[in-house]
Amino acid sequence: MNIDFFFNPKSIAIIGASPAPGKLSNVIIESLKRIGFPGKIYPVNPKYQFIDDLKCYSSCTDIKDDIDLAVIAVPASIVPEALKDARGKVKGAIIVSGGFKESGVDGRGLEDKIKRIVQNNGIRVMGPNCMGIYDTISRVDTFFIPADRIGRPKKGGISILSQSGSFAATIMDEMAAEGIGVARVVSFGNRVDVGESDCLDFLADDEETKVVALYLESVDDGLRFVEAASRCIKKKPVVAVKVGKREAGVYAARSHTGAMTGRYEIYRAAFRKAGIVEVEGYEGLRDACRALNIYRPARGKRVLIVTDGGGMGASLADSCEELGLEVAGLSEDLKRLLSSDLPSYCTVGNPIDLTGSVTDDWYVTALTEGLKDGFDMAIATVLWGPPQLTEGLINKLSAVIKGQDKPVIICTPGGEFAKRMNRAFEEKGIPVFTTPESAARAAAVLANARGK
Amino acid sequence: MNIDFFFNPKSIAIIGASPAPGKLSNVIIESLKRIGFPGKIYPVNPKYQFIDDLKCYSSCTDIKDDIDLAVIAVPASIVPEALKDARGKVKGAIIVSGGFKESGVDGRGLEDKIKRIVQNNGIRVMGPNCMGIYDTISRVDTFFIPADRIGRPKKGGISILSQSGSFAATIMDEMAAEGIGVARVVSFGNRVDVGESDCLDFLADDEETKVVALYLESVDDGLRFVEAASRCIKKKPVVAVKVGKREAGVYAARSHTGAMTGRYEIYRAAFRKAGIVEVEGYEGLRDACRALNIYRPARGKRVLIVTDGGGMGASLADSCEELGLEVAGLSEDLKRLLSSDLPSYCTVGNPIDLTGSVTDDWYVTALTEGLKDGFDMAIATVLWGPPQLTEGLINKLSAVIKGQDKPVIICTPGGEFAKRMNRAFEEKGIPVFTTPESAARAAAVLANARGK
Repeated sequence: MNIDFFFNPKSIAIIGASPAPGKLSNVIIESLKRIGFPGKIYPVNPKYQFIDDLKCYSSCTDIKDDIDLAVIAVPASIVPEALKDARGKVKGAIIVSGGFKESGVDGRGLEDKIKRIVQNNGIRVMGPNCMGIYDTISRVDTFFIPADRIGRPKKGGISILSQSGSFAATIMDEMAAEGIGVARVVSFGNRVDVGESDCLDFLADDEETKVVALYLESVDDGLRFVEAASRCIKKKPVVAVKVGKREAGVYAARSHTGAMTGRYEIYRAAFRKAGIVEVEGYEGLRDACRALNIYRPARGKRVLIVTDGGGMGASLADSCEELGLEVAGLSEDLKRLLSSDLPSYCTVGNPIDLTGSVTDDWYVTALTEGLKDGFDMAIATVLWGPPQLTEGLINKLSAVIKGQDKPVIICTPGGEFAKRMNRAFEEKGIPVFTTPESAARAAAVLANARGK
Repeated sequence: MNIDFFFNPKSIAIIGASPAPGKLSNVIIESLKRIGFPGKIYPVNPKYQFIDDLKCYSSCTDIKDDIDLAVIAVPASIVPEALKDARGKVKGAIIVSGGFKESGVDGRGLEDKIKRIVQNNGIRVMGPNCMGIYDTISRVDTFFIPADRIGRPKKGGISILSQSGSFAATIMDEMAAEGIGVARVVSFGNRVDVGESDCLDFLADDEETKVVALYLESVDDGLRFVEAASRCIKKKPVVAVKVGKREAGVYAARSHTGAMTGRYEIYRAAFRKAGIVEVEGYEGLRDACRALNIYRPARGKRVLIVTDGGGMGASLADSCEELGLEVAGLSEDLKRLLSSDLPSYCTVGNPIDLTGSVTDDWYVTALTEGLKDGFDMAIATVLWGPPQLTEGLINKLSAVIKGQDKPVIICTPGGEFAKRMNRAFEEKGIPVFTTPESAARAAAVLANARGK
């Protein structure tokens, strides 16, 4: 069923709107103004006539317009009434209020009540206990945390679906700081109605979304989820982290969004069936977003490693193999070529070790020739100690990377100097990873991802 | 056998000293001056009379003094001669030159030659193909990379032993940027003589060293290694990363320091026997250093998780259990206590979820009471979105942490605001981790480490 109005609303009502700065509903009004929501904003609260410069309505029924989206920000006990008031007027509602299934017996009763209302009154509902939508395309922002605490990413191609609001907000914040852009971010919380499958259906056809990242504690309907994900993956990569794998996680997830998390193995099988790339935890999802923000999936699992520090290369090779990548040997032709182009003390294997005597041009030679040799992608572990490496390497590598169509990941752990160089790489649009393990995780995502 | 003179030299000869800035031997002289080496420095090179303001000698035999430590920085082919020249004059030598076993057949022959010389002339040798020693206690620095490229950590309690120079240099650089101090760092390279077991023997009795971190591709002598490590662990924690676990890693490690890396399972068993905490890769060793820089090992594996974001708590609980930690439930007494002290919508379990309504004081209550409940350590996952959290939390948590003797790890992923708060925590001497996975890795190290 179509839920486009969540992602393209012409009008938004804020139910329980307050003029008090810092109040959840007030933060949302401010956020909508800041992001430049182009439609109409209707505050609803019988206590007020105006909220800031906006006319305030005592009830949804007083609004003449049809309302695409209502944000319900009233205490849990009043939510059923608010939903009834919105009936016939509102297409979709986001219930940001908490105090439902996640908070014990009383809340569970209240949530069941909402579910019954939703089944009958024709409004599609996100939440409760969620942060709703941050959308750089339609310019909607219901994440009720001020932007000085949690940064908002710029416009980009990644869409995030998350059962957990804090997980979504935190990864958004980190992406904002790193300059990675998003299309739509959805925190759907307790999921009385709209969940990951509805959203996947929408995102599959959404041209703004190039990549989908999922945080799941459970799924609403296994079969529907696999269908929706499979359809989505025909068009774009989908990565997912499943939380609540073991005893403690299961317990935490249950009390969190009230979700019963099923046996992990079943999820794994479903992910595999749908073609979803499963990643591990927050680090895994973050690294996947960094990589897929720039690169399309690789053609296969053969990875070339080029380094100027043997130990770091060896450590990276370990990580790659552990994640199922193939650190395949070089062809005899390539070995011959590199042996004649590089000094004899370089190791012409995989990793190619250019040693501490490395120059900028050796990296260019190794990567250019190496990538012609049947590898699907490369990781260049650049340690900046070697004195003949110059900042010019950044432009030179950037030209190599842009001159061909295989992903090249830069891995540069270290301190001040390395961090400065990393920023320079990132300014060229090249993703940088600061540990061998994160570079390997990113490469594994590119190897396993499907979609255009 | 005693190798103390490597770590407490009164005099250092630089064999192959050059006045040319940027030359390896010149960087070492500059580094020794910069770090304030308090002993005598003797440049040796028949071509020069002075190098900067230091008198230069044509041979070791021309130096009247006895030499505790010689740094040999001449081309590989001349190293045998340099060793012979040093005979009877020098106690220990660090051969920083490359071009030996790691670089093919010729180099292997040369390395065998060095080995035979070393067996007969009474000089203990580190290297070849190594960076030698960075020592904040004796103020020695033979790492021949300028400090503007690779930062030098301040004085501290961690000592690092590494077969790989680049691995040691990179982790040093990162520690310098993070303000983590080291005692002694040794890169011993191809290990014709002095290796990890000799160094472990020294570090076991070294009062400046509180923690030992090892990077190994192989060990020199399995039995001796287990003995030395076991003795060391009676006094201080030892953590190790083993590189060359699988096919690709083995290949890379072999060509790197010429080490034949044995079957990984044998290493694992040896680590376990000795009581070494094995960590995974660069991330693992870095996180272990961060944690052990501040905290002594925990008494056991029971970890309490406190969070204000359910999803992040659930993800952390998963990671902890995966690493063998026990995310044990709360006692009935504690549940009763917290249920009366915290609002009903908080989840009083493990994790304790304080929700987005959290205040600074709820964190104080949860941690203070929680740590009395038989837990061995705690992880506080602080997400800074909740509007009622203030910067005052840092002082309050710092007081809680310092008021008891169990490790408390702070986990705060996120963007600009979170990073600023992290620096404030670190200024209080509290270790901060920016992903749930790194916090879990740190906690696992504290749980598994032995030693005072």
